[in-house]
Amino acid sequence: MPSHEHMVAAVEAYVDAFARGDPEAVVALFADNATVEDPVGSPAHVGTDAIRKFYTESMKTGAKLQIIGPVRTTSEFAAFAFEVHLEMGGATMRVDVIDTFRFRPDGKVAEMRAYFSQNNFHTGAANA
Amino acid sequence: MPSHEHMVAAVEAYVDAFARGDPEAVVALFADNATVEDPVGSPAHVGTDAIRKFYTESMKTGAKLQIIGPVRTTSEFAAFAFEVHLEMGGATMRVDVIDTFRFRPDGKVAEMRAYFSQNNFHTGAANA
Repeated sequence: MPSHEHMVAAVEAYVDAFARGDPEAVVALFADNATVEDPVGSPAHVGTDAIRKFYTESMKTGAKLQIIGPVRTTSEFAAFAFEVHLEMGGATMRVDVIDTFRFRPDGKVAEMRAYFSQNNFHTGAANA
Repeated sequence: MPSHEHMVAAVEAYVDAFARGDPEAVVALFADNATVEDPVGSPAHVGTDAIRKFYTESMKTGAKLQIIGPVRTTSEFAAFAFEVHLEMGGATMRVDVIDTFRFRPDGKVAEMRAYFSQNNFHTGAANA
């Protein structure tokens, strides 16, 4: 199974890709047949083409990610808390999210799930 | 489905039960046939008797939980980051954990999963 260090590096690469607006760097983290459920409960984006389209659109919002606290890992999962900062209609918004990444033995992400809802949207960038 | 407020209150009741050392208060949050996978990847505790036994033993360690940041919710999940503080062999330990609770429509927790590993254990109570 992938190491703790590998999984933490993948999470950091994911955040860095948003900082640069580089969807291909996110696509490269995922397995060919991976699923992205963002938020959990919504229809999953399945496979490279759907994942590329989803992250390309997501990054167009200018969303930037800030990890809060350490990345938690298990034998095949990484879980991490973060804030999304973005501008919406002239206001600065913060969304509090927790993501889980499930890794394949080869280190690629097979499944991403994002936990948040409208209740986790707040005006202002600072954590209340 | 349960409200955001219901799910947040359940998470707070879970933390408060550890503070009081009250396993029955945790058992009361779970559905009869619920599963507890703590950590993710270990065999699940299934059903009320197994869940009671697991939390009774867990609380004997004196573990106390401190939520870090807001509880994230979806239509049926709560996800939250927290620190576990406990004494082990005379040393104060901190474990960084993320839990997810999946709720049934009646508001009971059907599935709990805890994301952490030995890589998330640290000496000292303060977040590094």
